Amino acid sequence: MRADVQRFSLKDPGDVSGLREAIDKGIVDPVKIVAVIGKTHGNGLVNDYTRGYLTLSLSQLISACMGVTAESVRQQVPFIFSGGVEGVLSPHYVVFTVEPNTAPAGEEKSLAVGIALTPRLSPSEIGRQRQIDVTADAVGQAKTNAGIQNADDVHFVQVKGPAFTLEDIVSAGAETCVTDNPGKLMGFGRAASALGVAKALGEIPAKQAMESAVLRNFRAYSSVASVSAGVEVRQNEVIVAGLSQRWSGPLTIAHRIMQDALDIDSVSALARDLGLSHGPQVPAAQARRIRAAFVKCEAQRDGTIRGRRHTMLNDGDIDQQRHIRGAVGAIVAAVLNDTALFVSGGAEHQGPDGGGLIAIIAEKE
Amino acid sequence: MRADVQRFSLKDPGDVSGLREAIDKGIVDPVKIVAVIGKTHGNGLVNDYTRGYLTLSLSQLISACMGVTAESVRQQVPFIFSGGVEGVLSPHYVVFTVEPNTAPAGEEKSLAVGIALTPRLSPSEIGRQRQIDVTADAVGQAKTNAGIQNADDVHFVQVKGPAFTLEDIVSAGAETCVTDNPGKLMGFGRAASALGVAKALGEIPAKQAMESAVLRNFRAYSSVASVSAGVEVRQNEVIVAGLSQRWSGPLTIAHRIMQDALDIDSVSALARDLGLSHGPQVPAAQARRIRAAFVKCEAQRDGTIRGRRHTMLNDGDIDQQRHIRGAVGAIVAAVLNDTALFVSGGAEHQGPDGGGLIAIIAEKE
Amino acid sequence: MRADVQRFSLKDPGDVSGLREAIDKGIVDPVKIVAVIGKTHGNGLVNDYTRGYLTLSLSQLISACMGVTAESVRQQVPFIFSGGVEGVLSPHYVVFTVEPNTAPAGEEKSLAVGIALTPRLSPSEIGRQRQIDVTADAVGQAKTNAGIQNADDVHFVQVKGPAFTLEDIVSAGAETCVTDNPGKLMGFGRAASALGVAKALGEIPAKQAMESAVLRNFRAYSSVASVSAGVEVRQNEVIVAGLSQRWSGPLTIAHRIMQDALDIDSVSALARDLGLSHGPQVPAAQARRIRAAFVKCEAQRDGTIRGRRHTMLNDGDIDQQRHIRGAVGAIVAAVLNDTALFVSGGAEHQGPDGGGLIAIIAEKE
Amino acid sequence: MRADVQRFSLKDPGDVSGLREAIDKGIVDPVKIVAVIGKTHGNGLVNDYTRGYLTLSLSQLISACMGVTAESVRQQVPFIFSGGVEGVLSPHYVVFTVEPNTAPAGEEKSLAVGIALTPRLSPSEIGRQRQIDVTADAVGQAKTNAGIQNADDVHFVQVKGPAFTLEDIVSAGAETCVTDNPGKLMGFGRAASALGVAKALGEIPAKQAMESAVLRNFRAYSSVASVSAGVEVRQNEVIVAGLSQRWSGPLTIAHRIMQDALDIDSVSALARDLGLSHGPQVPAAQARRIRAAFVKCEAQRDGTIRGRRHTMLNDGDIDQQRHIRGAVGAIVAAVLNDTALFVSGGAEHQGPDGGGLIAIIAEKE
Repeated sequence: MRADVQRFSLKDPGDVSGLREAIDKGIVDPVKIVAVIGKTHGNGLVNDYTRGYLTLSLSQLISACMGVTAESVRQQVPFIFSGGVEGVLSPHYVVFTVEPNTAPAGEEKSLAVGIALTPRLSPSEIGRQRQIDVTADAVGQAKTNAGIQNADDVHFVQVKGPAFTLEDIVSAGAETCVTDNPGKLMGFGRAASALGVAKALGEIPAKQAMESAVLRNFRAYSSVASVSAGVEVRQNEVIVAGLSQRWSGPLTIAHRIMQDALDIDSVSALARDLGLSHGPQVPAAQARRIRAAFVKCEAQRDGTIRGRRHTMLNDGDIDQQRHIRGAVGAIVAAVLNDTALFVSGGAEHQGPDGGGLIAIIAEKE
Repeated sequence: MRADVQRFSLKDPGDVSGLREAIDKGIVDPVKIVAVIGKTHGNGLVNDYTRGYLTLSLSQLISACMGVTAESVRQQVPFIFSGGVEGVLSPHYVVFTVEPNTAPAGEEKSLAVGIALTPRLSPSEIGRQRQIDVTADAVGQAKTNAGIQNADDVHFVQVKGPAFTLEDIVSAGAETCVTDNPGKLMGFGRAASALGVAKALGEIPAKQAMESAVLRNFRAYSSVASVSAGVEVRQNEVIVAGLSQRWSGPLTIAHRIMQDALDIDSVSALARDLGLSHGPQVPAAQARRIRAAFVKCEAQRDGTIRGRRHTMLNDGDIDQQRHIRGAVGAIVAAVLNDTALFVSGGAEHQGPDGGGLIAIIAEKE
Repeated sequence: MRADVQRFSLKDPGDVSGLREAIDKGIVDPVKIVAVIGKTHGNGLVNDYTRGYLTLSLSQLISACMGVTAESVRQQVPFIFSGGVEGVLSPHYVVFTVEPNTAPAGEEKSLAVGIALTPRLSPSEIGRQRQIDVTADAVGQAKTNAGIQNADDVHFVQVKGPAFTLEDIVSAGAETCVTDNPGKLMGFGRAASALGVAKALGEIPAKQAMESAVLRNFRAYSSVASVSAGVEVRQNEVIVAGLSQRWSGPLTIAHRIMQDALDIDSVSALARDLGLSHGPQVPAAQARRIRAAFVKCEAQRDGTIRGRRHTMLNDGDIDQQRHIRGAVGAIVAAVLNDTALFVSGGAEHQGPDGGGLIAIIAEKE
Repeated sequence: MRADVQRFSLKDPGDVSGLREAIDKGIVDPVKIVAVIGKTHGNGLVNDYTRGYLTLSLSQLISACMGVTAESVRQQVPFIFSGGVEGVLSPHYVVFTVEPNTAPAGEEKSLAVGIALTPRLSPSEIGRQRQIDVTADAVGQAKTNAGIQNADDVHFVQVKGPAFTLEDIVSAGAETCVTDNPGKLMGFGRAASALGVAKALGEIPAKQAMESAVLRNFRAYSSVASVSAGVEVRQNEVIVAGLSQRWSGPLTIAHRIMQDALDIDSVSALARDLGLSHGPQVPAAQARRIRAAFVKCEAQRDGTIRGRRHTMLNDGDIDQQRHIRGAVGAIVAAVLNDTALFVSGGAEHQGPDGGGLIAIIAEKE
């Protein structure tokens, strides 16, 4: 098996010219696409429709190239888009392709990718035990699909789960849901899904992966989970990426945890892990080896950072997620010399309180 | 002469407990206060009243300690506040005090500070030749007041000029103003003031410091100017900070220009200039030497950064200044290990397009 | 007893020129001021500092005129400011004065005003039984102070209670609070306070005025309560306004409940109640009789209004309160021909779901 | 000729279930669709992608039903969407269909509709004489297509013109454009287009319909123009609606001008013009006769309304268009008892300063 990852810039959420050109030139074979992850122009909150717009646009392009319906493409391929390109960040999407058995794999480990989906989840199941458990099952299955044997070789687990508008919540019976606040319900969903990832990979004991820990026990977390939610999906979609000797190809993956929003040392260390040179910033020539980077972040819950007050959790004008994505995204962009980063807020149980995952897919040295 | 700089955190814009305690303990002598610069909780735009709130609160505290009226304090001491602590930034204010002739100055240069004010400016003078010229005069005078002989020894010129609401503009005659848009007029005012600084310090030829260059010739800029505007002032207030052998004391100052928003190398280089140790981040023990840091930034005008698209200039939900302050502020905070930074957007003619000044006042090694 | 009410426009939250001029001209006697209610420029959410700014500015003006400290003024006079003048609304404040026993009261009822304060409330008491009960006690006391015997003669009960920043909540022990979300805690506080009003006036049975009803049983509500919260107060401040034969003077008060945000019929009916002429809009000549108007509003919780979808509860860019204030404020302004209205969002238990109080103080016919 | 107008609610900008069902049931014949006008969930500013999303979704539905490409549908049918459903407004779209010669027309006038398109417009042509002139030509042509002889019988001219992102402006040469600010350029485009409408219908003398009047001479305006701009179109699309004896059918149209944002009298008068009953609010049973309503509005340029200050033009958090749409939309909704209104901000030269058009298509009495 051999995975490839191509990144395309995005003028607007209906702009699929990048992938179209790559398909026309033979760089991407549409039938081999297994997942798309991207960062769109919206606010990344409940009323962000740029995710659905890009999903529609890309699924139509791919379906037209393959001669199938857009709906069947959407059923097979996870389209995981997160809104919000605050500050220096640049809208883009990353296309994962997998080619079966192109070469006998050697000793060297290469990027391995596996996909799985949970059953559909209703508003009342969000943030609950069922979401934890079905996510854990899907992660296990995706890991198996990826041919990754050791949990240590998993470096990135992207989950996209459903968000619901107020109307959906009311239809489902607001009193049956863990909260009737649409934005808050997104947080519960991310939290439960992250605990599912941690459970599947043995990062926490099974007894900590309980509904009672959701948004309560922040010491229970996954170091490789990245979870988003959006109104455009109705089940948890899971992508596991890691390293395996069964896979070949030019790409590798690594990850680190940022302990808090200022943890630039971990970003630099991750660059070094991948052989990207030292200095405050990766030189442009080396930055070209980066194929995709994924970052999770959140505002520290006690309202401070390294002992000083921040204002993100009191702000009625700009959502805390928009603040923290702009800040952490800029730090990572400045070190990597690359602004087309998938930076996602809402890192509940995805790293320690105030911190989060950073994972990079890069060409091998 | 001997300058001191104390920094205080700010719970809300009416919170003057930090300075009050410092006065009570004898750390700050209120009669020696020559200027206050700070970063408040508001949006930093026209309808930001947190600047006026802190001005009122501090001027009352100081006047009560000195037994004079608050109005007389406001006439003598520039209170230069900029709103907007996006992302990881922390609200705070910095109090400059000057003590005359405490010790015979030696060979060593120390932090030197000088103040000057322009006459009042009407809405129709903003962005015009008169604002350039009176600002240049005030900078020259403040430099003289600071006892700085060489323009190369000027490291930071803070200017706070007037902003006007729509009502002010209409009263003054909208057709006599360079624009009737309150936010845009703030930009014209910053631009003209910055050209005034550049003219005064010989950074650009006098013939480039013309009204015709304002918001047009972006190659004409000052490398040490930092200009803000706010509805709470009616004249340009100028603070010049630099180095002089005539001054003694424990503090020094240095500056660099960030060439663009990702120019983390210049931030690291400035830390080295001040003897703050290498590595991606200044260690906490050394970061304590930092007494104040000033950063100007702006969204690059062509809508890109290092060849990739940014979205800051198309955003109808979050002002471009809020985006860029959050991004550049985070980068500088991550390197300096310090979030109480004065980060100000709107860097017209204050550094190259998309870049801006960074200046640090620190304890000598 | 005789009450007077004067309304002043507000250029910015530090602008007290209106009251100053009225004091200078003898129109307002500062020692007779018993309360100030106003609408400031901020967002009306947790990080709205315009309320504190105006409180500071007005308390200083009044204290200077009276020769007492600003702090003693703030302890005696409730300053109840609500941020948010969305759309056509105009920032302003209303000063209540009371003159003792100026004339033997006749048969006619006139505007009567009474004030009371609860003890201080900690973050963990917000939204809880204690807040309900101490508010009910304070309402009873204020009603007595106002000399209003019949609960039917109470037309307006304004309560301003404390809001807390994330930092306050963390200091108090987030786990002891009903929620750790600062904005949500404001809602709990408004809700419990409204139930306290309803309990005091017998609008609901005492057994419905329980903590368990807070933000749950929306059929339990007061028809005369208007509750705001802000970080600048630490106790519930209560103003009761109604009609009493013991009072004389030129003013009267009336109220109605808007059943939902589109209930323009109730606005028109209230205008008729006060003898303001018919037609879609009160003519300017008659609108001058209006001295103050108070409106509570909220987005209907099921996401619809009269069967059609609204988007206020899904919006990540503009808070639902800002949406609904702008909408309901415009409707009331258009009927009354007056934009200086106190329109306040967050109408939990202050009228039916999606509706709220409208009260007008006007000169008698 | 016979026109019909159907209105459909919109759950999200990809929700075309309403039209799909109407087509399935034979209520709408897709080949007869001549235009779609709608109100989507976005901010209505430059970075509003909900307009493009709905355009894509509807053009695909219609093309699939007709067996043609989506592109050919988009070339023939104007899809005119305006973002922003602030306050009580409800997202929806209105489908215009035209059936040729169904019945010999009688004396009675009925709703008549005509369409025309200008050539493509580049960024540098926006706000310029060329945009005025080609719009005037298109309006004349659309009026002819509608078979309307008398300009007095034109009641509504909807124009949708191009908006450009910063990137587009830079590509085209920012110095060749009337402004390099994307949001401001939208305003210039609306203004020039409105003057084109006024010119075509003889509402202003041709010599006033000059580039020099754009955003300067606000006494030059059209009483029937409604202009929007969006990044999803590249030419001015023009829909003329009015009354003609050559048309038959159940529908009529009428319009009035709101003189300012509080002009509720004109809204009531328009309801009466259409035989909708008096009272502050049209009863629900009669409100069902309304098929579509179109409203233009703007914040009055001097920062006041009826002598009192408003804050819309100083606000850095919420764009003035969002403020005014929420306010005026609520007033009209309250009178008409209908929240699915097309309320559009940016009324430059579309009615007097601070005012704007209101037009209603309704079933005949």
